[in-house]
Amino acid sequence: MRSHDNEETLMIQASSPSTSTLNANSDLSKLVDPVRADVAHVEALLSSNLIDDNPFITELLAQIFSAGGKRIRPALALLCSRATLAKGQEFGQVHIILAVLTELIHTASLVHDDVIDGASLRRGTETVNRRFNDRIAVLMGDLLFAQASICLARIMNPVIVGIYGRVLGDLCAGELRQMKQQFTTSVNWDEYLRKTIAKTASLFAAGSHSGAILNGAQDAIIETLKVYGLKLGICFQIIDDLLDVVGTSDQLGKQPGSDLRSGIVTAPALFVLERQDRASGKIVELIKTRAIVSDEGSQEAINLIKEHGGVEATLEMAHKYARESIESLVAIPASGYRDSLAGLVDYVLTRIN
Amino acid sequence: MRSHDNEETLMIQASSPSTSTLNANSDLSKLVDPVRADVAHVEALLSSNLIDDNPFITELLAQIFSAGGKRIRPALALLCSRATLAKGQEFGQVHIILAVLTELIHTASLVHDDVIDGASLRRGTETVNRRFNDRIAVLMGDLLFAQASICLARIMNPVIVGIYGRVLGDLCAGELRQMKQQFTTSVNWDEYLRKTIAKTASLFAAGSHSGAILNGAQDAIIETLKVYGLKLGICFQIIDDLLDVVGTSDQLGKQPGSDLRSGIVTAPALFVLERQDRASGKIVELIKTRAIVSDEGSQEAINLIKEHGGVEATLEMAHKYARESIESLVAIPASGYRDSLAGLVDYVLTRIN
Repeated sequence: MRSHDNEETLMIQASSPSTSTLNANSDLSKLVDPVRADVAHVEALLSSNLIDDNPFITELLAQIFSAGGKRIRPALALLCSRATLAKGQEFGQVHIILAVLTELIHTASLVHDDVIDGASLRRGTETVNRRFNDRIAVLMGDLLFAQASICLARIMNPVIVGIYGRVLGDLCAGELRQMKQQFTTSVNWDEYLRKTIAKTASLFAAGSHSGAILNGAQDAIIETLKVYGLKLGICFQIIDDLLDVVGTSDQLGKQPGSDLRSGIVTAPALFVLERQDRASGKIVELIKTRAIVSDEGSQEAINLIKEHGGVEATLEMAHKYARESIESLVAIPASGYRDSLAGLVDYVLTRIN
Repeated sequence: MRSHDNEETLMIQASSPSTSTLNANSDLSKLVDPVRADVAHVEALLSSNLIDDNPFITELLAQIFSAGGKRIRPALALLCSRATLAKGQEFGQVHIILAVLTELIHTASLVHDDVIDGASLRRGTETVNRRFNDRIAVLMGDLLFAQASICLARIMNPVIVGIYGRVLGDLCAGELRQMKQQFTTSVNWDEYLRKTIAKTASLFAAGSHSGAILNGAQDAIIETLKVYGLKLGICFQIIDDLLDVVGTSDQLGKQPGSDLRSGIVTAPALFVLERQDRASGKIVELIKTRAIVSDEGSQEAINLIKEHGGVEATLEMAHKYARESIESLVAIPASGYRDSLAGLVDYVLTRIN
């Protein structure tokens, strides 16, 4: 069950009040405006066949990316690259490739996650494993990782290789970590955070500070953007976990409660579990008896979470990471790009409104 | 069903007569002698965690490579690199990484293939998907591809990126191509060859000429080694297909006939199918009625192949590619490395003895 399960399907609604003093705006389309031309290049490269001239592969890749997606990670990478470009420095193909790499890794991991989770719906449409079968989905994910490998190698920078190598490892380790913990009911926030970083925030952090590295920015700027992306990624995942509890099928493009039905205990449930009262006892029972895997059982857990403060506490936690993410941006020079980066944090929060 | 299914389990038997005038020897251990020290470096790097300092990942990687394997592809890469080193040129870490990359891609694709095929046994022991489950096997394969990505990027050579990018695509395309053709009975040798190259020979060819590229060898030498690897890879796959028909469970470390039971029609069956007689009619019937998926059905097909010349014709085909592979070596300077490369061809052939 990857983070980004819920991300693509929610409509952006009215802009929420800004969580910081920076100029923030949560209309994604407007936020992306400063890098609009770059996004078009990213889109073209995303569905190009970098591998060979095999029309069969070209067609498969085109199909995957025609399904749409908000492209938050490429937007993040582009805005951070632009925001840290020194005077006279050129924005080049390497920055575009970096943004493409980030989305390729994300998409590849989604395709494999859907196999792992046996998921049928994503972005309101059938998953690859459902439309075809698991075997084809494994290969399609491999194909996307192959494209990502080519991008990573084309960047020709050993530091970037180190960063993205770690991201690839984190994605696997995060999933394996989560598997180990399915149907456990102990409250371990450190473990939740580690998993959240590995599954989601690690890629956000990579996308947000790699451009600054390529631009030769000062270490303090690089570090700031890394913190920005990391906190934003954690916030993103917390909101995603919350959406699985409070979202509707229409909003999510799939049934809510999928984490709970899989025995995956995330922030909203953890907040209730740590109460050690009748409500937490009931959730423990639903998990231990595996009643939670049924629609009724997961609905009962959702109701308990909603009735015992799980939603509010999770939202507060997400806001804390959002604030920290935005605050870190103060260290980089003011620009329209920085405004958009701040706005992206708000956008991630407003997915819940 | 990947090529290399059968490769690791057969004991090397007595050396067969050389198929060429070059000094050939099919004792794998002796063949590898000229690069013995390099192989130790490859082995150490293979099971190192290039991704991060996560002990969990380190342990998983160590587990995968402790299972053994003949390491034919790294041997090939090392011998070709050494054979084309110019006077005074140093053999370096980049050559080791190239050999490691080749084996990582091979192993990653094996792990995912076993998921795709639902295979239970490999190298005489349980597959990852069997020992754990499909979900973990998908992630383990991804982890190996991540390691391969890091190696590919570390080589820092755009031509090598192009070559290995294509290999990664070929591996996926070859499997998809094979899936499309399961349970079809038409005789299409072009398609069989394309699939064989994509699944197996493409990686052999990459491993055998990339070192020469890094060494700045002449185009004719590079091309020669590419042909050598391509023909050897085709020969290897043909022998592998044959072993699935004539091998025993003890030899193969798994039940023979697995291709046939999956409706995958390879050279031995194709030779009988093109006869268009009673024997071919019977095989068509076994495939069309899906009787072939049973132990009895696949055994009947194996018997028909053995009784109607399928084995001899396939062996002859393998010898033809072996000859062409060895003959191409004449274009590179004589050396102990070249002798071993010639011997490797013989080794691949003797797997059948």
